[in-house]
Formats: sequence, structure tokens, C-alpha cells
Amino acid sequence: MTAAKATSAEEPLLNLERPRPGVAVLTLNRPAARNALSVAMLDALHKAFAALGADTTVAAIVLAANGPVFSSGHDLKELTAHRADADKGLAFYSEAMTRCSAMMQAIVACPKPVIAAVQGTATAAGCQLVATCDLAIAADSAQFCTPGVNIGLFCSTPMVALSRNVGRKRAMEMLLTGDMLSAADAVEYGLINRAVPAAEVLPQAIALAETIAAKSPLTVAIGKRAFYAQAEMPLSEAYAYAAQVMVDNMMTRDAEEGIGAFLGKRPPEWKGR
Amino acid sequence: MTAAKATSAEEPLLNLERPRPGVAVLTLNRPAARNALSVAMLDALHKAFAALGADTTVAAIVLAANGPVFSSGHDLKELTAHRADADKGLAFYSEAMTRCSAMMQAIVACPKPVIAAVQGTATAAGCQLVATCDLAIAADSAQFCTPGVNIGLFCSTPMVALSRNVGRKRAMEMLLTGDMLSAADAVEYGLINRAVPAAEVLPQAIALAETIAAKSPLTVAIGKRAFYAQAEMPLSEAYAYAAQVMVDNMMTRDAEEGIGAFLGKRPPEWKGR
Amino acid sequence: MTAAKATSAEEPLLNLERPRPGVAVLTLNRPAARNALSVAMLDALHKAFAALGADTTVAAIVLAANGPVFSSGHDLKELTAHRADADKGLAFYSEAMTRCSAMMQAIVACPKPVIAAVQGTATAAGCQLVATCDLAIAADSAQFCTPGVNIGLFCSTPMVALSRNVGRKRAMEMLLTGDMLSAADAVEYGLINRAVPAAEVLPQAIALAETIAAKSPLTVAIGKRAFYAQAEMPLSEAYAYAAQVMVDNMMTRDAEEGIGAFLGKRPPEWKGR
Repeated sequence: MTAAKATSAEEPLLNLERPRPGVAVLTLNRPAARNALSVAMLDALHKAFAALGADTTVAAIVLAANGPVFSSGHDLKELTAHRADADKGLAFYSEAMTRCSAMMQAIVACPKPVIAAVQGTATAAGCQLVATCDLAIAADSAQFCTPGVNIGLFCSTPMVALSRNVGRKRAMEMLLTGDMLSAADAVEYGLINRAVPAAEVLPQAIALAETIAAKSPLTVAIGKRAFYAQAEMPLSEAYAYAAQVMVDNMMTRDAEEGIGAFLGKRPPEWKGR
Repeated sequence: MTAAKATSAEEPLLNLERPRPGVAVLTLNRPAARNALSVAMLDALHKAFAALGADTTVAAIVLAANGPVFSSGHDLKELTAHRADADKGLAFYSEAMTRCSAMMQAIVACPKPVIAAVQGTATAAGCQLVATCDLAIAADSAQFCTPGVNIGLFCSTPMVALSRNVGRKRAMEMLLTGDMLSAADAVEYGLINRAVPAAEVLPQAIALAETIAAKSPLTVAIGKRAFYAQAEMPLSEAYAYAAQVMVDNMMTRDAEEGIGAFLGKRPPEWKGR
Repeated sequence: MTAAKATSAEEPLLNLERPRPGVAVLTLNRPAARNALSVAMLDALHKAFAALGADTTVAAIVLAANGPVFSSGHDLKELTAHRADADKGLAFYSEAMTRCSAMMQAIVACPKPVIAAVQGTATAAGCQLVATCDLAIAADSAQFCTPGVNIGLFCSTPMVALSRNVGRKRAMEMLLTGDMLSAADAVEYGLINRAVPAAEVLPQAIALAETIAAKSPLTVAIGKRAFYAQAEMPLSEAYAYAAQVMVDNMMTRDAEEGIGAFLGKRPPEWKGR
């Protein structure tokens, strides 16, 4: 994958590194703009997740960010500039929101687990990005908020992801007040998996990715897809679906190998089929 | 709005005050009856939420109660009296349950956030009332329970609201045992937002309402409606819906004003359109 | 009910005791096999829940286990043996997964509350069994995990139950890493109701069952069924359904008796109708 280029500078919008076998670290690299999710950034992220999802050398993805802010959400200057359009921005806003929602769903659809490594504040669609990742580790100094209500633009798309991670009254308080949530509260609420010292965020996220990368990528892909699919089904339908997923999974070579290795007390060798 | 009158006394069933601009405090005022939700009280509440929802001078609503009990739920004496009806109460019970459920849904549908200020125990449909409000602050001495199982009448309608706030095993324990939940556990379980000293309940609820009343009422109404709507949709449908809500919200004058004010580092002036 | 017999020994797969009136304790009794859920065990459990569900002398069920492990999930040796089948096990795996899912749903459908008494580790479908029970009490030394990912077979059916009890990021971490969850974390995550000293698990589970057995069994059955039914409905449908359940419940003799006893300050006498 070629790193996406920023339009206004030579710095790429995203950096991509591979610190360990099977582990990709994708880093938001627009720190001066608080890693705002401009349309260019949304496209770069969507393309990156599509590429990493298809890359057979990648088994788990860490989503990190440069600078003091993880992401401040949509690029308000970019949105405001389109008020001057003939349609007062209608077409552009529709495009921006559609692309943002598509990118978020690309994370959910990506067959590789995505782990947010949150070094700083995650705001609005930036908070949505954390909520959307499968797992999240944050600095204990990081904060989370959905402050759209303060600027007349309710965090309606962020709440789709937020409310699927956090209970109703807690999500409502964040959405209606715009107040900051501490990392400790974010752990308690279920928005993130754990809060650690700032210097440990990236190492721990990479270690977690490495742990997952040691599993059968086929098995992980089967499971991730099934997780989000069954979550939307009534119980009996979820069981019918998941039972079939288990049967299909049993017939894979990796399940035969994994179970054989376990019973034989030897390490498995994954083939990805 | 005219305060609803109690049938048996001159005291109104509900008191209405406006302690701050944009903030309405609606107070259950049947303390001698433990603020039981008689049909008259249900109707008074339903009308009050409809009226406050339509009142452009109100931006947030606090629901409080007089006396030591927040609400004990349905009025068992009233229900029992109708055993003497020709149909053994069937028509009346149907009417009572339908009206109760309609009132609860009127809170959800109300475009203004509703904050429960829970000074004392909330039981059965009284607990449901707390669960139904968008936000809740309770006295640290307050307790919560769904004890219908103890009197042969399972808290089936209360559990609709309870189980949308509290995890399954915790909700099941409350419903199957009828045991009291402490305010501290209610915070941990997500039933309420916070527990505070009794004297702080109403002031903090009013302060929270005031915080919300400082936002654009249009934006808050857009967001509250979208929150409950998207919560019932599968992910892709929720995103398609919420993205359209965001676009519509962007085209409002309040979003233009709010974003402009934020970028210009000045306070916004909401117009509600 | 006749206790199911193990195929390879005289020991029954399940023990059944009735330590208190109305309380049945069903005990997984294959400790040397870590109480693995072989097809024979699945069938024995399914039949036991069906029989206890229909037994009018039983009001609440405790599900316990003998040995150091609560249940290790599917019987991997049994599954592996069927690799030698002409169809490489396809028909058997389909049968095993279908039966397992049917047994889990029989617990949900059972009109009597089922309380897991978890004395040791619960793994994969064993963890699913705990998640599926209506309530759960565990030893503070017990652990929970869904480690299928380690053997190439994602815990796809276990996650149906797990993800209906535990938030998304926490469930995902368990599923993607296979790591153990402590009993204390299981309480915090909502997977179990409480963690107690090992010696207290069974006594407390029996005491909880006894508490529930003192309620009207009819009322409990109405409520348990309604709980899981309404959980899958959108709000307005859930209220329409639950309001009708309440009306039907009001017309039962037990509700009339229970409310009359409450108002008359005397103990109720349940008739189960």
C-alpha cells in the first residue's frame, strides 16, 4: 500500500509500519490539524483498511495517531468552507457523512481485528473511531467526548458506534452535555478495554495485535464476521447462524490442525484454510 | 399548562416550577400515596410531558417527587377496587397498562431531555419511570426495585425500560428476587448517572438541565430522537439513517451558527432553526 | 426423572438432588472429562431441563458441577474421532452444534429460573452455559474463557450467549485472545451476578433458588418468558406485548392473591393459576 499523501504538504496523511510479523500499525498523521477526519483522511483510512484487510501478510491492525490529539473528528473548516457552495454545502455534507459512515463500517467489515491505540483525546467522530475499533487501549490521560451538541451539530453518527459500546444513560450524558469522559470511566463504561500509562499505549496495542496475529487468521476472520452478524439477530436466528458457522469452521484445515495440536500438546501450524 | 388536580383533595397531582430559564421541574405530589401511578397520575404525567414538549420556553425537564418515596409504581388499591367490576377488572387493567406504557413512551418521544431527580425509593413502575428518563441523578440513600414477583404480578412492563438500561443477569436478579438495589449499584449497573447526597439531588438535576438548556434546543431534539431511533436498527441501517440526520442537522441555522461561533471563538446564539 | 447414564461407566452424567422444597440441583458429573459437553451430555442436559421445566414440584433449578472444572465445553476427542467419518465429520458436527444450541435455548425457554453455581473454570461452551443461565454465582477463584481461537475453532456459538451478557469490547477481547477472565471481572462485566468463596457457591445458589421458589411459579414463568421475548423487540412493540402480559397476569388467581395479601399484610398462598 502506498501511504496516502496530504494535499497541502509532502507529509502523508497516514503512516504505515510493520513492527512485528503480521502486525500493521496505521498512524493518523495530521497532528497540526488534530488528526481531523477530512474527506481526504476518510478516503485514506477507507483505502488503508481495504488494503490491509486484503493483505495476507497482515493479521491484526493497530490504529494509532501522532500528536497530542487522537482525532478531533470531522474537519470543521472543510465543512464550513462548503457553505459557499451553490447548494450551501448540501451535496458535500451528504458526501462527507456517507464516506465517514462507510469508512467506519469498513473497520467492522475488515477481516483483521483493529485495535485503537489512543494516546490523546478522541472527540466526536474521533471518539466514534475508537468505539468502532474491535478493541481499544488508551493512555490513562486520554479523554473522550461527543461535543457536537455544543456547536449545534449533534453527534448523531458517532452515537451509532458509541451506543453499541456504552449503556444508554452514560451515552446520553456524553451526547447531551458534550462533557469529557476520563479514560478510567471509559474502561468502566466499556468504551475501551484498558487505560495504561501513555508510554505503554502503543507497545501494549502492538503486543495485543501480536497475540492475535499468532492465531489462525482464517479463524479470526470467521469469528469477527460472525460476531457482528449475530449481534443483530434474534436469539434463535443467531444460534442457527452461529451453529452453521461453527460447522463450516470445523471443516477447515486450521480447526483440524488446531484441535489436533491441542490434543497432541504441540504448537499448531496455521495454513489459513 | 394547568397543574393537574387530584380527585380527592385540593393538592395538585403534579407541581410545575421553572427555577431557571429553559428548565421545568415537574414534581410528583402524591406523597401520602407514595406517588403511586394511579390512572389520574398517569394521565397528568402524559399531558404534562406533551405540554412541556411543545412549550418553546422549556429546553430540559427535571422529574422530581415529594415525600420519602420517589414512586411506588401502580396504585394497587385502585387496581384491586376494579376486581369488583363485571369483567373482574379486565377492561380497567388493559386501560391502565396501555396508558402507563403510552406515558413512558411519551417521555422517550418528548423532544426535551428528561432528568429524573430521585430523592427516595423507586419501585416497580416507579423504577421504570427512572429507567425511562434520559438521565437520572439519585440520592445515595435511594433504592430501586422491581418487586412485582412478590405479589404475583411480575414487573413485565417495568422490565422493558429496565432491561434497556441494565445488563441481563443484573436485571433478572432484580426481577426474580424483588430485592432492593442500592444507589451505588444502580450507578455501576447503568440505571442512573450518579448518586449524590440527598440535599444535592434536585440542585444537581437542575444544574444538569441548565447545562443542556444552554445548547440549541433544535439540535438536542434532533439528537434525542435519533438516539432512540438508531438504537433499534441494524448497523448499516443505523448509519444510513444517522448520516442523513447529520446532513439535515448541518443545513440548520443553529449548526451554521454553532460551528461559526466555535471557529470564531465566540459564544453561539441559538435560533432554534 | 431418571438420571442419565454415562456410556462408559456406571456413574450418571448428571446428578439430580432436591435439597429444599421447590429447588432442584442438577450437577454435571463427568469430572474426569472436565464435564465436557459430549453429545450424550448435551442430550442429558436437554432432557433434564425439559423434565424439570414440566415438573410442578420444581420452582427453581441450580446447575452445578463436580470436580475442579465447571465445564470445558465441547468434547474435542469426540469431535476429532469423527474426522474418520466418510464425510470427514460434517454430519456429526452439524448434529453436535445443533443439539448444543437447542440445549442452550431450552434453558432460556425453561419456565423455571436456572442459576449456574460455578465452582471452577468455565471454558468455551462451558462459559456459554454460564452466560445462558438466568443467574450465576461463581467461586472467586473461578475463571471464564472462550479460547476456541487458540485451536482454530472460534467460539462462535458461545459468543451468542456471551455477547448478550457482556459489552462488545470486553466480549471481543475474550474471543480474540482466548485469555482467562477472573470471577471479579466477570461480575463487573455482567457475566455473573456475584463471586463468593468457593465453599459458599452451592449454598448461596441454593438459597437464591429457595428465594425464587417462594414466589408464585406461575408469575415467575410469565415473567421469564416475557423477559427474553421483549428483549428482542423494538420499544413500542415491547410495550404493547408487555402491557398485554401484565393484563393477563393481573387476571390470574396468584396476582389477585398476592396483591390482596400485600394490602392485607399477610403472607400469600400461591395456587399456580
